[in-house]
Amino acid sequence: MPRFLIRIEYDGSGYVGWQRQDNGNSIQAELEAAATSIIGKREDVMVQGAGRTDAGVHATGQAAHFDLPHDFSEEKLPLALNANLPRDIRVRSAKKVSDEFHSRFDATGRAYRYRILPRRIGTALDHTRVWHIHHPLDVAQMEAAAQRLIGKHDFSTFRATHCQAASPIKTLDHLSFVEDGEGIALIASARSFLHHQIRNITGTLVQVGLGKWTPEDVTTALNAKDRAAGGPTAPAHGLYLTDVTYPE
Amino acid sequence: MPRFLIRIEYDGSGYVGWQRQDNGNSIQAELEAAATSIIGKREDVMVQGAGRTDAGVHATGQAAHFDLPHDFSEEKLPLALNANLPRDIRVRSAKKVSDEFHSRFDATGRAYRYRILPRRIGTALDHTRVWHIHHPLDVAQMEAAAQRLIGKHDFSTFRATHCQAASPIKTLDHLSFVEDGEGIALIASARSFLHHQIRNITGTLVQVGLGKWTPEDVTTALNAKDRAAGGPTAPAHGLYLTDVTYPE
Repeated sequence: MPRFLIRIEYDGSGYVGWQRQDNGNSIQAELEAAATSIIGKREDVMVQGAGRTDAGVHATGQAAHFDLPHDFSEEKLPLALNANLPRDIRVRSAKKVSDEFHSRFDATGRAYRYRILPRRIGTALDHTRVWHIHHPLDVAQMEAAAQRLIGKHDFSTFRATHCQAASPIKTLDHLSFVEDGEGIALIASARSFLHHQIRNITGTLVQVGLGKWTPEDVTTALNAKDRAAGGPTAPAHGLYLTDVTYPE
Repeated sequence: MPRFLIRIEYDGSGYVGWQRQDNGNSIQAELEAAATSIIGKREDVMVQGAGRTDAGVHATGQAAHFDLPHDFSEEKLPLALNANLPRDIRVRSAKKVSDEFHSRFDATGRAYRYRILPRRIGTALDHTRVWHIHHPLDVAQMEAAAQRLIGKHDFSTFRATHCQAASPIKTLDHLSFVEDGEGIALIASARSFLHHQIRNITGTLVQVGLGKWTPEDVTTALNAKDRAAGGPTAPAHGLYLTDVTYPE
């Protein structure tokens, strides 16, 4: 049973999220159906993702692995899967990996991008793809606040109440804003993240950008180790999983 | 009856095009319905666009004008219209203009962007927004070919058979490729264009990028003044009307 690591791009708008669920289409279920189709439906293929994305969250670099009952060329596997997938999910590449490889447990890093468009009028083209903020944002203050969150901290303030992680302590390796078309994007990377961590951080940094919070307030909130001390959760549709990294 | 010039952004995917038609939703009809709504439906507002865009073509800078029976602030008019428009159409701005102003006849320039993504695997996020080409493109050769089309020419080779323009002679002021995310975009500007002119030029330049045509072949095609001598028509969904310019 050869094992494959695939890289996936998707528009999360029409899905209940990465994970298979009873109440709607998921990216995982679409991939499993496509993989099952290409082996002639002899057995169900289980696809394991590197991480779950919520409903509406997009990906340009999600990773997942699965086993096939027979060999397949790395070149042809993406094309065969894509022929069986909806247009808003594309497998970018496939790589044969060892039987012990696990896309979730072997991942050493995850990178996300959160897109924000601060302008008076909303966006016709990107209304499912960026968080539109009606007011101007002070990006320098947002950047100063972001710098205060880098490093190893108890991120309970930015953790979803239903988060299942064993510990709220995470090490944020990178957090900064970049230009993104007419707007800005927050780039974040870490070994792993708590549930809603980036959306909760983004919602809080936008409060700073609006002048409602100071960068100092963000440190105070972090130190409170209490979700109630944090800012609002940014909407799902501005978030993109851009990369999952593995050793070697 | 004050007259207003508005700037409009839209995702053309779900529309039959700019122009009002019996067989589906048009951008023009949506704007007319919104304008009629905000004046309390006392009379039908007619919206005149600077140019038609085909089904699937997008805009970030379309222009149009219309008359309202009473005054409206330039600040509030876009918000009032947007409250009555679908999410994929946004009025960016409104400006009061003279009674003689005409968005189509007074326009002194139009600018377009045609987005192309050359990569092996298609795009999940932009499949209705860029033309995906499976093969690599030689952009330097495409640029060299584009330069040959700049200036005043008889563009019959790149003119749709049903084009209603009085003359096939147009002056192309600017035509060049720029980087666009993972792909490239063709930027074109002129006082006005023939129907399908940019899509036919793009389709032809892609033949050059694929190595099937030389830049010289493009000059030969132009000189033939015959649509049959041109390359294929690029799909509508890669095209964006980005600006319409007026004197002063």
